[in-house]
Amino acid sequence: MADDTLPSKDRETGPVFAPKYDESGLLTAVVLDAGTREVLVVAFMNADALERTRATGRVHFWSRSRQSLWLKGETSGNYLTVQEIRVDCDQDALVIHAQPAGPTCHTGATSCFYRVLDRAADDGEALSPVKH
Amino acid sequence: MADDTLPSKDRETGPVFAPKYDESGLLTAVVLDAGTREVLVVAFMNADALERTRATGRVHFWSRSRQSLWLKGETSGNYLTVQEIRVDCDQDALVIHAQPAGPTCHTGATSCFYRVLDRAADDGEALSPVKH
Repeated sequence: MADDTLPSKDRETGPVFAPKYDESGLLTAVVLDAGTREVLVVAFMNADALERTRATGRVHFWSRSRQSLWLKGETSGNYLTVQEIRVDCDQDALVIHAQPAGPTCHTGATSCFYRVLDRAADDGEALSPVKH
Repeated sequence: MADDTLPSKDRETGPVFAPKYDESGLLTAVVLDAGTREVLVVAFMNADALERTRATGRVHFWSRSRQSLWLKGETSGNYLTVQEIRVDCDQDALVIHAQPAGPTCHTGATSCFYRVLDRAADDGEALSPVKH
């Protein structure tokens, strides 16, 4: 459960996990490949998704568009198996090191972040493929 | 400007940058160290923060708690200089490779993600320092 009464020093330095959900009840979750360290996907977790992720070792999100719990890989089989969960200073974001069973993006790409934004270009022609 | 009328295929595969802001007008932004690839901080950008980031090459966020534009490093001097901006499939999240001028976290830590969550522990004693 969130504990909004935790003093900020304890929130930042102590052993107490007191996730700070936003007004929609969500934390931000960044998942990266535990092997390559590439960022695979960024999504959101509510308390239920976090609890199921901790309990099962498979990453679950809350889908904002579908408004439902979402086991990542439930249709593709490309589950994300948790290796480590890191928590930030104010406990409103997680970085999860995971082992992907296959491509993470629904487009078939390894990572959802497969395009680069040209800082100076017009928006109509600003994106191009990532060069690894 | 966001273009919510862009067909999802074009949004996912084309060169058009059409950021998909949430109902609060925000994108999620993950910043990592361009050298070490460590995730440094996760925060949010509105259109103004993104425009200033693109124009200046220094990472700007929108502070949800203060409800104001936030040049990361404006008080500490520890700016984040943009090297590359990556965009995800549905264009609602960014991964920014940046060069940090110093520790990114306001606690003095290199990264805001300096603690690990024990999946099985009670929340009262679930966090411990990251072992690099």
